[in-house]
Amino acid sequence: MAKNSAARSATAATRSLVQAVPFTAVRFTDAFWAPRQETVRTRAIPANERQCELTGRFRQYDLTWKPGQPDEPHIFWDSDVAKYIEAASFSLASHPDAALEQRLDTLIARIASAQQPDGYLNPHFTVVRPGQRWKHFDDHELYGMGHLIEAGVAHHAATGKRTLLEVCIRIADCIDGVFGPRPGQRHGYCGHEEVELALVALWKATGECRYLAMATHFIDARGTAPHYFDTLRAESPDAYVYKTQRHEGNWSYYQAHLPVREQTEVTGHAVRAVYLYCGMADIAAATGDQGLAKAGRTLWNHTVTKLMYVTGGIGSSRHNEGFTFDHDLPNETAYCETCASVGLIFWAQRLFQQERDSQYIDVLERALYNAAIAGISLDGERFFYENPLASLGQHHRQEWFGCSCCPPNIARLLASLGGYVYATADSSLYVQLYAASTATMTVAGTVVALSQQTAYPWSGAVELTVTPAAVVRFALRLRQPAWCSGASVRLNCKAVKARVEQGYLVIEREWQAGDTVQLDLPMAIERVHADPRVRQDVGRVALSRGPLIFCLEGCDNGADLDAVSLPRGATTTWRLDKKLLGGVGVIRSRGRRALPFSDDATYHTTAPQTAACALTAIPYYAWDHRAPGAMQVWIRETV
Amino acid sequence: MAKNSAARSATAATRSLVQAVPFTAVRFTDAFWAPRQETVRTRAIPANERQCELTGRFRQYDLTWKPGQPDEPHIFWDSDVAKYIEAASFSLASHPDAALEQRLDTLIARIASAQQPDGYLNPHFTVVRPGQRWKHFDDHELYGMGHLIEAGVAHHAATGKRTLLEVCIRIADCIDGVFGPRPGQRHGYCGHEEVELALVALWKATGECRYLAMATHFIDARGTAPHYFDTLRAESPDAYVYKTQRHEGNWSYYQAHLPVREQTEVTGHAVRAVYLYCGMADIAAATGDQGLAKAGRTLWNHTVTKLMYVTGGIGSSRHNEGFTFDHDLPNETAYCETCASVGLIFWAQRLFQQERDSQYIDVLERALYNAAIAGISLDGERFFYENPLASLGQHHRQEWFGCSCCPPNIARLLASLGGYVYATADSSLYVQLYAASTATMTVAGTVVALSQQTAYPWSGAVELTVTPAAVVRFALRLRQPAWCSGASVRLNCKAVKARVEQGYLVIEREWQAGDTVQLDLPMAIERVHADPRVRQDVGRVALSRGPLIFCLEGCDNGADLDAVSLPRGATTTWRLDKKLLGGVGVIRSRGRRALPFSDDATYHTTAPQTAACALTAIPYYAWDHRAPGAMQVWIRETV
Repeated sequence: MAKNSAARSATAATRSLVQAVPFTAVRFTDAFWAPRQETVRTRAIPANERQCELTGRFRQYDLTWKPGQPDEPHIFWDSDVAKYIEAASFSLASHPDAALEQRLDTLIARIASAQQPDGYLNPHFTVVRPGQRWKHFDDHELYGMGHLIEAGVAHHAATGKRTLLEVCIRIADCIDGVFGPRPGQRHGYCGHEEVELALVALWKATGECRYLAMATHFIDARGTAPHYFDTLRAESPDAYVYKTQRHEGNWSYYQAHLPVREQTEVTGHAVRAVYLYCGMADIAAATGDQGLAKAGRTLWNHTVTKLMYVTGGIGSSRHNEGFTFDHDLPNETAYCETCASVGLIFWAQRLFQQERDSQYIDVLERALYNAAIAGISLDGERFFYENPLASLGQHHRQEWFGCSCCPPNIARLLASLGGYVYATADSSLYVQLYAASTATMTVAGTVVALSQQTAYPWSGAVELTVTPAAVVRFALRLRQPAWCSGASVRLNCKAVKARVEQGYLVIEREWQAGDTVQLDLPMAIERVHADPRVRQDVGRVALSRGPLIFCLEGCDNGADLDAVSLPRGATTTWRLDKKLLGGVGVIRSRGRRALPFSDDATYHTTAPQTAACALTAIPYYAWDHRAPGAMQVWIRETV
Repeated sequence: MAKNSAARSATAATRSLVQAVPFTAVRFTDAFWAPRQETVRTRAIPANERQCELTGRFRQYDLTWKPGQPDEPHIFWDSDVAKYIEAASFSLASHPDAALEQRLDTLIARIASAQQPDGYLNPHFTVVRPGQRWKHFDDHELYGMGHLIEAGVAHHAATGKRTLLEVCIRIADCIDGVFGPRPGQRHGYCGHEEVELALVALWKATGECRYLAMATHFIDARGTAPHYFDTLRAESPDAYVYKTQRHEGNWSYYQAHLPVREQTEVTGHAVRAVYLYCGMADIAAATGDQGLAKAGRTLWNHTVTKLMYVTGGIGSSRHNEGFTFDHDLPNETAYCETCASVGLIFWAQRLFQQERDSQYIDVLERALYNAAIAGISLDGERFFYENPLASLGQHHRQEWFGCSCCPPNIARLLASLGGYVYATADSSLYVQLYAASTATMTVAGTVVALSQQTAYPWSGAVELTVTPAAVVRFALRLRQPAWCSGASVRLNCKAVKARVEQGYLVIEREWQAGDTVQLDLPMAIERVHADPRVRQDVGRVALSRGPLIFCLEGCDNGADLDAVSLPRGATTTWRLDKKLLGGVGVIRSRGRRALPFSDDATYHTTAPQTAACALTAIPYYAWDHRAPGAMQVWIRETV
């Protein structure tokens, strides 16, 4: 009953959502994302596959591991394999590859063989700790299953095969037998959110309303009294958390300190938080739950106004891999996990779909072009887990991690990035991201082909060619980025005054094949100042141009980057250096460098001498590709 | 033989040392130290006694603890008790107190009763882990015994009683049976240095050369191959370190990565390091070992030029309670353990005694007036373990700690502080610290009474009255503090041009009773700049006046202290506020405050507005005595 009514309202609520144009209908033709996607397809996804093979993550499904053997299956290894499958499926969807598809078939059969008769799937709890299922809220079981469900949905969408999807349905049915509001079920939820959004995806893929109801249960139960984690601790006082940091008793770490609708402040582990908020947004969208939607907006505002780095990174502290307190944004020790920015992008997309406001895509763009893609090397084979905004040179991308959530996460985002460029709703076509690309979509019942020409992010000049199958009236909504002032639009080369709605320049008319729209987004070099309550950035500026945040690197600017300053009046210039780092824009300026004192003493009653120097800033995402050394986003500004 | 020759050279070498005038011969008559010493006597020492009683530290000597009972004797509890006894003995020496003496007698009897037949003394290894003696290099056994030895020496000096001294002699003889270079002895040493300097003190107190040889062995063996810690690990692979952080394999944490004479860089745990260096200095002084003396000078230079905070605090990181890398001096996360500054003072005193250069006393004064006494509240009952140079308001002095080394350490320093004011050598009388005081000493064979009048550290005007028992020729050497320029001297109210030697203004003459010397040390408010290689302090200044470093507190200056700046041209004024914090100098200035933006966004392309504000700085040592809040030493400087 509850389920049926949820499903009914779901159908009604989803109708008014903006729909992303799926990535399968979008092809990048640019020099920025198209090569990135190619490295993801040809390097990052194979690298993930190779590492999963090497580390035993695939082998775990054979269930042959015995105590004392190496490569003991870890509680959350499933999630890495699942995200690899999801990324590979996205790749297959836009770039068929029979050999990869075959290898996925084999892997999926291996996974299926590890599924227990009741549908439970987690090799760790099958071979390492049998009989220990569901004992501890931080054992990540539902987290791993959630990722497998996302993978199953993606694999089915890409190949039409139901092999992994059926495994996931059995997983979901197993979960449904254990968790839920009914008598005899555990009224609980997982310490690491993920299954909520996954179950909504499974509902969408299968039409089975039960999965939406399950997701709703997990959202509704979280943080309620009596507290599930306390109950579980009382039941199994000695339950053991496998190699993970405990935050026992600190339920805000798990976003479980209050019922989610009562939460007004973002807390705890950043990735868990944004995955939860994605799930909340999904349920709000599906059911029209206004209380949930309102809580989501409140948490969003808290995130982006108090807790977000200028790069779109989130999570200030390594200690909890997450949030600390308002305006606490240390640069050198910033955590800014790659996964957290990926999750922020997921969340922003969902909120936009409900709210239709460009602010969400502005944040999405900021996180995408900076914190997120910094997480993967230009060659696609090395990854950052943490993305600090300053470094003494000790941070370097790695091939893999013991806890290796980030490499497949950034891969799955980039492999499906086309899905973030365009969106449609009612009689509107939204252009969200600017990137040379072609796309096909249905607007106001008519198939529309769209071609975008631009050298973005290096230039803000954009030309769109609209080719509807027949003349059709709709509103073309061009995002006016928050970083841009003075945007102008021409229609078929004639200036038009577009009205602005919710951050979009709107051109509503009857479109004909061959209509062109020229959008000019002036890209100035900006000096970004943080609110002075961000104590770490007072007296400093970050350089930006368009969506990109820039940084100083030691190899261009010498060591001791804090000794360097950018004079307030100094002219900054930008040019595209096609030979550098695959082609990047570079900002140059004169600067000053405070010089070490000539004697050995640390402290002096005179100010240090300064000398002129040249400053060279490159895009933040491209750092750590040359000689290892220091890096800094927030540059001291002097008069 | 080795022992005898060491002792012979020892006698020769010590003859040329500067000798501190003992604290028993010095009495503070000032408004700064005299009240501090009174709070130490009447509040801090009783507080230490009370806490040792409450926490079971005294009770442990009854050896009645049984598994499962509370207050399990900890491996290093002895050290807290020992430092309490040492502080109490110093107090007795200058302020007889029959009741305290009686309580010490009782306590000492209790300690003696816990001594094992072979002299071993550590209740933990007697009742908690019997049979586990000497299994792990980080079990702190020799560390605790070292502190007991220091206590025994102090108690004997203060009371003439040999009760605790005899216990210590049996301890030392026990150690001698176990450790040393002879066959059958362990060729090892303790992970936490302390016993080295203690054995030198025991040698001086007893004249028994064996103890000097033992100390020399511990110094000589440290860091040599085959490595003792490796040997020990091989012998007892499962040896268990009781509740201490392991730094297994990282021998530089223990200053045991190289033989000490080959060490050129200060590493690891700060308190261990300075205790080791004190031991090295003691052996170098006693034996004339030039290699050891040279290594000590090198390590000293490294400490004070690359690793020391402007407050005289040392130890940048909580992680290892110690040193990180050159010029890494984070303010908010500074560790600066109170004990480390106390140890730095001990070390500085020792190096001065050998080198006769004022630079050591300059550092001693810096550490004493700032980082060290910040560690104890003005009322003597609360203590800082860490002494950061910036705080958001989360740091507060506490009554006691689980690991409570700092409270008795600062108490023993302050109870014996008179010993740092004057020194004599050959025909010289050194005035090291400026403080209103009276003292009696022997110079050039003649008893000299000295009276010092000054309002130091608030004023640099000092008058000394010299009263020798007979006319006597000697050089009065007045330290010209490094913070002072333009010092001038008058003799019997007539200007004299004193020559400067090793940082001392020298007046050499025949002194007669009633001769007066007027020293004027101009005390300007200084803006201190750190070398730009200290990345955390670039663009910032610390305010100092005389030996004191000042800080801003939130209760005077509002929160968000990083938003506040001191304009380069702003006039700073100083005045003594007798009603504030027991009477402190206060520096005031106009300042600017960067204002939060009026909207909610964190990032803006305009600079924040600023407003005029008033800045009030108080001495660093006096912070955290009013409304809890932020604190900052390094203030942003703007033009």
